[in-house]
Amino acid sequence: MSSIGIGLLGFGTVGRGTAAILARNAREIERRAGCPIVVRRALVRDRARAESGLEALFPDGDASAIEIVTDGESVVAASDIDIVCEAMGGDEPALSLVKQAIRSGKHVISANKALIATHGNELFALAREHGVVVAFEPAVAAGIPVIKAIREGLSANRIDWLAGIINGTGNFILSAMAHEGREFADVLAEAQRLGYAEADPTFDIQGIDAAHKLAILASIAFGIPLQFERVFTEGITAVERADVAFAAELGYRIKHLGVARRRPDGIELRVHPTLVPERQLIANVDGVLNAVLVHGDAVGPTLYCGAGAGAEATGSAMVADVIDVVRALTTEPAQRVPHLAFHPDTLSSEQILGPEEHECAFYLRLRAADKPGVLADITGIFGTLGISIEAIVQKEPEVGSQEAADSDAVADVPIILLSRRVREGLVREAVARVDALAAVSEPVRLLRVEALD
Amino acid sequence: MSSIGIGLLGFGTVGRGTAAILARNAREIERRAGCPIVVRRALVRDRARAESGLEALFPDGDASAIEIVTDGESVVAASDIDIVCEAMGGDEPALSLVKQAIRSGKHVISANKALIATHGNELFALAREHGVVVAFEPAVAAGIPVIKAIREGLSANRIDWLAGIINGTGNFILSAMAHEGREFADVLAEAQRLGYAEADPTFDIQGIDAAHKLAILASIAFGIPLQFERVFTEGITAVERADVAFAAELGYRIKHLGVARRRPDGIELRVHPTLVPERQLIANVDGVLNAVLVHGDAVGPTLYCGAGAGAEATGSAMVADVIDVVRALTTEPAQRVPHLAFHPDTLSSEQILGPEEHECAFYLRLRAADKPGVLADITGIFGTLGISIEAIVQKEPEVGSQEAADSDAVADVPIILLSRRVREGLVREAVARVDALAAVSEPVRLLRVEALD
Repeated sequence: MSSIGIGLLGFGTVGRGTAAILARNAREIERRAGCPIVVRRALVRDRARAESGLEALFPDGDASAIEIVTDGESVVAASDIDIVCEAMGGDEPALSLVKQAIRSGKHVISANKALIATHGNELFALAREHGVVVAFEPAVAAGIPVIKAIREGLSANRIDWLAGIINGTGNFILSAMAHEGREFADVLAEAQRLGYAEADPTFDIQGIDAAHKLAILASIAFGIPLQFERVFTEGITAVERADVAFAAELGYRIKHLGVARRRPDGIELRVHPTLVPERQLIANVDGVLNAVLVHGDAVGPTLYCGAGAGAEATGSAMVADVIDVVRALTTEPAQRVPHLAFHPDTLSSEQILGPEEHECAFYLRLRAADKPGVLADITGIFGTLGISIEAIVQKEPEVGSQEAADSDAVADVPIILLSRRVREGLVREAVARVDALAAVSEPVRLLRVEALD
Repeated sequence: MSSIGIGLLGFGTVGRGTAAILARNAREIERRAGCPIVVRRALVRDRARAESGLEALFPDGDASAIEIVTDGESVVAASDIDIVCEAMGGDEPALSLVKQAIRSGKHVISANKALIATHGNELFALAREHGVVVAFEPAVAAGIPVIKAIREGLSANRIDWLAGIINGTGNFILSAMAHEGREFADVLAEAQRLGYAEADPTFDIQGIDAAHKLAILASIAFGIPLQFERVFTEGITAVERADVAFAAELGYRIKHLGVARRRPDGIELRVHPTLVPERQLIANVDGVLNAVLVHGDAVGPTLYCGAGAGAEATGSAMVADVIDVVRALTTEPAQRVPHLAFHPDTLSSEQILGPEEHECAFYLRLRAADKPGVLADITGIFGTLGISIEAIVQKEPEVGSQEAADSDAVADVPIILLSRRVREGLVREAVARVDALAAVSEPVRLLRVEALD
């Protein structure tokens, strides 16, 4: 086969990582793909900036082989481009360019989780019309081949649930809080200094980035259309050092998980800080690493772990998808791996459950007066509502606190409660009643607990 | 597309697991594959035994759809069989039947690591001749899609090394020794009672099973022919409780690893008990689980973990490979994923290094007289040979031992030494010299150490 021409949309971190891999591993990749794969053109906004540093990217020379352009047409519609790799991020112009590429009969690989999560259904329909592949391994967990694992490796299974650490920034922050006993704001500032967090960290710390990825993972796991707008999303900004410490005392780590679970009555899609038992491997995945735990009915739990970001880690997935496309060039389009793992006319309309319907175990932290009857009042509320309690711990008054110092006053102490698995709506009702108790001085803080068994 | 007919070779644990999944998840699998996949026939030795329990395997009925046969011809050469799933194990008759299937134009999936590791080169050549796929995901790490991850998911990478816990029996034994402080023979007996170890456990505890799997993993990682006979193999029978305890004191766990490493001058293929730093996730993979850590130059380290054995865990991989074959039915044979990940005319003849040439760090344990000058003599030997020492620990005499009781005698104490990375031949020379010291009362025991960074 003659060589395959690649056009890059975007030439920042991921675009350059992709180009660097294709240049450095050209021979290795040709041995696998059966033909040379060459980047011919890269679309940029600022040509001068893009051309600087090109030599460093290609230590073995040949930097000039990539033509830097500023008009999209010459990438998405040119006859010498077979596959378009989109690494621009964001909505427009990425969406229009990808559509144009598809209409021009180009296969597309995208590292853009927001694009896939919010426009994937439309893009895949268009791709089917034109008989091309739109692949997106680099959009989730960088180079960890978790899309491939779910779409192909676990294709014998009915997937029951999956849970993933799919945002490296959030995991870096929570890991540092756990291991160094620091507060959220302090670690976030460090993450920004280190380049692990953006100047505007909203997408990462509010869970939006993780929700994009979870929507994608859930679709290929369950065979449902992409439904990003139905993902319940809670960020990590409200996790306090005290919660991390109490969780550790109880044998848990707090991780920002994306969880997708199939129940008889519907599907849960949720992103939130989660207490995970420390004996679980995934609870020990620290720093900027990503990890996804997938439970299939035949295979049981399988775990996929590695770098969740980075130029070449993401480029690795981009190039792997390119090689997949090359290997499937002669395959009849309808026979190729379906975009969402299931053939499009068999996607399921299972409903996505609202947050009140979610079920998991809960961690509750509150402050209440250290006097007889308070614990009984609290546990009574749970008992009345039929919520089983796994553990309840009343802490000693903090040494040096006002309450401890003033021995005449009734001390105010932290109380930690772990519930068993229960419907979230019911827990919210219990929390409202606990908050209304006179002895409770600080409203209940609620975190979710997943045993992941 | 009309339905795809499966013929099973063997109807024991894995054959039944495969059939059970295809029956239970028939609809889910059809949604993915685009057509029904049906087991039509199963080859067995003992028809009566095979037919017993069929109903339990298919709770939703339809057990009668599988015809139990005792002649191989009707599975490997019948016109209504498209894909043959081999789950017999061993050499013959599996080898002859698989060849016959290939010659009859059937695609073959094999769960038989011994067959693939020792006859794969020949089988793949035959398969190319006949334009069919021979796939083998179920042969390594059961349902963990690690073959797929390496052959496809990491195809952009030059793989530097991989290290895997790829024998569940061995891992069960070493985990129990570590967590319960028990001796090897004791745990082995329990593993046999639980069905985790065979009555003749040789293949598992001597590392032969792991060596089969390592040979396969190394081929697809580095693009070399299968060379099982070149794998250096050391079992776990010589690991003592004391080593497990000393390793733990030093911050390590002992795991039976298969390690494949590419060096500028050749490739290391070795299976042996290994000290792994406990901070590594893979060091915490316990029980019958398997895990494979793969290091690619672009993606860095990625880890794959899950059940390493079991009817449905292995069946999961078998069926996934079946679906892959269905998805590639219209693909030109030369364009399909190459059997060994690299196109056959590009396989490399890089040499497999002999054990003397291997490089890693080492753990040495010996007993020597507790008197001045002994440590200096030992460290002197290492210094003379240019071997760097990472740590050396002289233990106190064991309480209650003869040496401790008799205060006049010079006590004999355990000495533990950790070397830095060094050529194995050099360490063997050092060991010979240490063993020759008069003060050394028990010969050096040697284990390998891998930081896996």
